[in-house]
Amino acid sequence: MALKWKNLNDTDAFTQLRRTDTLFNPADDLTEERVNSWKVSAVAGITFYYGASMLTEIDISRLQALSDEQNLIGKYKAVINGERINTGENRRVLHQLTRGQLGKDVVENGENIRSFYEEQNTRIRDFSGKVHSGIIRGSTGKAFDTVVQIGIGGSDLGPRALYLALRQTQTPKMKAFFVSNVDPDDAADVISLINPETTLFILVSKSGTTQETLANRDLIMARMKAAGVQDYNPAKHIIAVTSKTSPLAESSSVLDSFFIDDYIGGRYSSTSAVGGAVLSLALGPDTFDALLDGAGEVDKASLEKDIRKNASLLDALIGVFNRNVLGLPSTAVLPYSQALSRFPAHLQQLDMESNGKSVNRRGEAVSYPTGPVVFGEPGTNGQHSFYQLLHQGSDVVPLQFIGFRESQKGEDVETFGSTSQSKLNANLAAQIIAFARGSNNKNPNKNFDGMRPNTLLTAKRLNARVLGGLLAHFENKVMFQGFCWNLNSFDQEGVQLGKILAGSVLDGSSDDEALKAYASILGVK
Amino acid sequence: MALKWKNLNDTDAFTQLRRTDTLFNPADDLTEERVNSWKVSAVAGITFYYGASMLTEIDISRLQALSDEQNLIGKYKAVINGERINTGENRRVLHQLTRGQLGKDVVENGENIRSFYEEQNTRIRDFSGKVHSGIIRGSTGKAFDTVVQIGIGGSDLGPRALYLALRQTQTPKMKAFFVSNVDPDDAADVISLINPETTLFILVSKSGTTQETLANRDLIMARMKAAGVQDYNPAKHIIAVTSKTSPLAESSSVLDSFFIDDYIGGRYSSTSAVGGAVLSLALGPDTFDALLDGAGEVDKASLEKDIRKNASLLDALIGVFNRNVLGLPSTAVLPYSQALSRFPAHLQQLDMESNGKSVNRRGEAVSYPTGPVVFGEPGTNGQHSFYQLLHQGSDVVPLQFIGFRESQKGEDVETFGSTSQSKLNANLAAQIIAFARGSNNKNPNKNFDGMRPNTLLTAKRLNARVLGGLLAHFENKVMFQGFCWNLNSFDQEGVQLGKILAGSVLDGSSDDEALKAYASILGVK
Repeated sequence: MALKWKNLNDTDAFTQLRRTDTLFNPADDLTEERVNSWKVSAVAGITFYYGASMLTEIDISRLQALSDEQNLIGKYKAVINGERINTGENRRVLHQLTRGQLGKDVVENGENIRSFYEEQNTRIRDFSGKVHSGIIRGSTGKAFDTVVQIGIGGSDLGPRALYLALRQTQTPKMKAFFVSNVDPDDAADVISLINPETTLFILVSKSGTTQETLANRDLIMARMKAAGVQDYNPAKHIIAVTSKTSPLAESSSVLDSFFIDDYIGGRYSSTSAVGGAVLSLALGPDTFDALLDGAGEVDKASLEKDIRKNASLLDALIGVFNRNVLGLPSTAVLPYSQALSRFPAHLQQLDMESNGKSVNRRGEAVSYPTGPVVFGEPGTNGQHSFYQLLHQGSDVVPLQFIGFRESQKGEDVETFGSTSQSKLNANLAAQIIAFARGSNNKNPNKNFDGMRPNTLLTAKRLNARVLGGLLAHFENKVMFQGFCWNLNSFDQEGVQLGKILAGSVLDGSSDDEALKAYASILGVK
Repeated sequence: MALKWKNLNDTDAFTQLRRTDTLFNPADDLTEERVNSWKVSAVAGITFYYGASMLTEIDISRLQALSDEQNLIGKYKAVINGERINTGENRRVLHQLTRGQLGKDVVENGENIRSFYEEQNTRIRDFSGKVHSGIIRGSTGKAFDTVVQIGIGGSDLGPRALYLALRQTQTPKMKAFFVSNVDPDDAADVISLINPETTLFILVSKSGTTQETLANRDLIMARMKAAGVQDYNPAKHIIAVTSKTSPLAESSSVLDSFFIDDYIGGRYSSTSAVGGAVLSLALGPDTFDALLDGAGEVDKASLEKDIRKNASLLDALIGVFNRNVLGLPSTAVLPYSQALSRFPAHLQQLDMESNGKSVNRRGEAVSYPTGPVVFGEPGTNGQHSFYQLLHQGSDVVPLQFIGFRESQKGEDVETFGSTSQSKLNANLAAQIIAFARGSNNKNPNKNFDGMRPNTLLTAKRLNARVLGGLLAHFENKVMFQGFCWNLNSFDQEGVQLGKILAGSVLDGSSDDEALKAYASILGVK
């Protein structure tokens, strides 16, 4: 049966949902019972608590009706069954296939795509093992001890955030660095930290033509050669992660190539070879597989139709409520874990690049707000910074907290009667309540209105499985929201215009006098 | 003459400003001439270009009228002359005194406060020299080669962002690390990278009672002692930056103390001893002095009444136009320089903590939007990420670009006919035009509406003087906006409630069952 695609404001359920005139009042009604029972039980170790949202039972029922009317689960099934959901580019959307056993096999031109992804994962495992055991070595005979990922956007933010999140859970097998910005100072910084003879580079570009990434490759390789190490051969120090049809694939200028295809979007590629190569090399293939397992568990749980039992679906719907009923334009992601320092930057890309759109799947303008601005920093740091606006600013910002009962390293001491981990989480619990309840004070400057909706994702400890689960939670949340808004969440036409104009500056073909004036001001040669 | 404080919507100028019904149309009218002439000429090496804002000449005149009616320059003069502008806390606001010769001397209880700040700077210069020359050494006799700043919020974000911005301009005199989060994994990470014998810690807390900072001090010192180095004496490895009345001041548990006072807010403290100690130790006192010089130049230029000649004032007013006339709820800061990777996080704090408020200076609720959500990442990275929403999302986000004609290190190569620096800046120029002009396309999915206002701050190269200028530009911008909105930009009552509730969890005094439920979920002991 063909899927029906409807704009949000053409659904009966949204008409009902907008009738909400009484928000839940946490100042009076946020009880211990609600805190403990408004949750979706653990999947991949992660429990979702939503008692401090501003929803009533009636709202939840209406969100269930919206999920049903928009057939969110049916559309998700179409994704994992390989339908060409990315209509703009006429592509399938198969990142979930990289990590689980969902859906049916997807076969194209006689090739089973799941097997293709699995084969790449196996090849990476094999390659990593040979690097770690010293069978594969640098061109001067020394073992590799460092890996440098050269990529940008989806080839950078996700893998970088995941590496930072896990590097303290174990002794890394190799040091890892990332170069992304075409600013030459970015590469220069990493170059100053590495030894050419023992460094393996991973060049990541699906098309094999990403300007920044190729420029950084050439810049870095020129510097490596300039180091003047005898017998140094750059081609023996670089692998590619790219598509089979790209100019980088199986080129003689690289040691080996690992493949992705057009069905894995950049921002959804962390569980493909794009994340697999660097994470397997730096942290070991078992760690990467545990990440895939966690993501796969969440993918499976995301098939549940009852929104009260499906955390990513419910989280998506709460976001739609905040955006389209309460009219709130941004969302903050606040992990109480320093290891997740760059996870908000990845989610910012994932969300804003997927749903920062104002035309629907048929290319018609939509009349309702879509993807919010997403930003965040780890707590407690943010508490001493931008939380002022979150508590007392003129606009309400919904909050997505993440926290863990235990620290990763367990290196803790008791001061002033409590451990640092207890202080961290006491602050997190306190913020949840402070934002929801507020606090009355006769001095208006010390008054807190509360009614600032927030939710909590929590697990025992941040390990690879939990991290994979968090990653898939947000990927699926964004996907469900795209379905609600009737968007294509899997293309990114908005990044094209700037690329074209930049090219016209560099090749001298632009006849835009204002553009040339800015280029001149900025010293472009 | 006493200053008059008025709400924005009580001014005649704002009534006029709101009459704007025709925005500037860059698709047709953004000419080379406008690009080159709509600028504020260089101060501290920085030029401000605002041709790609959506303002007409009439709007500029109305903004001038608003500046005059709200007496923004008069209020700034009151700040630098030491009036108690921070009414909520009954405090003067004197961060500009740390770096320039503005205003009259401020004397309190017979002490000249400018001299006090200068004395601290001189003491830091002297101390740094002795550390660098090996006169002051660690307790086991080894020279210090590493400095670790322990602080949070204003004692962390600014100094950290400035250190990262400048560390590639020279060979650092000492390696620098920062510990802020009470998450014990944050300290554990830094501990794994340092040698106790050669590391000097800087404990930064104005009150001397910041929970996270003291917990991190105790955690780190316990680990240093546990390293078991013979003769190691922690008190010889730590200095304090604090107020004279704090428990940390001149304590026997520290090697030396450097002072700030209540007239320097945390988020404004980068040019005080808070930034001075770590930057002078890591990069040398001359670098810190150059930073002060650049900030002082901008402070002086910020006294100009003609908004067309005062970049921070004009930038502030353009922000008010975007927020209160166009109704835009957020702002992105986009530096095309990897060295400024954490500068947006500092500005996020500076802006959101200062103006994220909804009561005026008299404690009355205001009826207009105040400080926006501020976020950002370096370009070109962001282009491959959240720029999708910025170009085609349902909400318009004003943009603040920053760019430099030359890279810091100059380590560059030509690929595909251009250097990396030229590619970087061609992209920046292209984005300015793409956001402003947009591009018509029959395919709505590839259509760009444009009309996305943006401005550019640019200089030849990012060095200490330019960085100081940028810092002061944004500090003064935020101050002027606070005056426009009739806010007290210098207190932060919004961070208090969470602290109180966290304390009540940790000492067991809370009787809030929901709070205790969350604490239990999070394993707080």
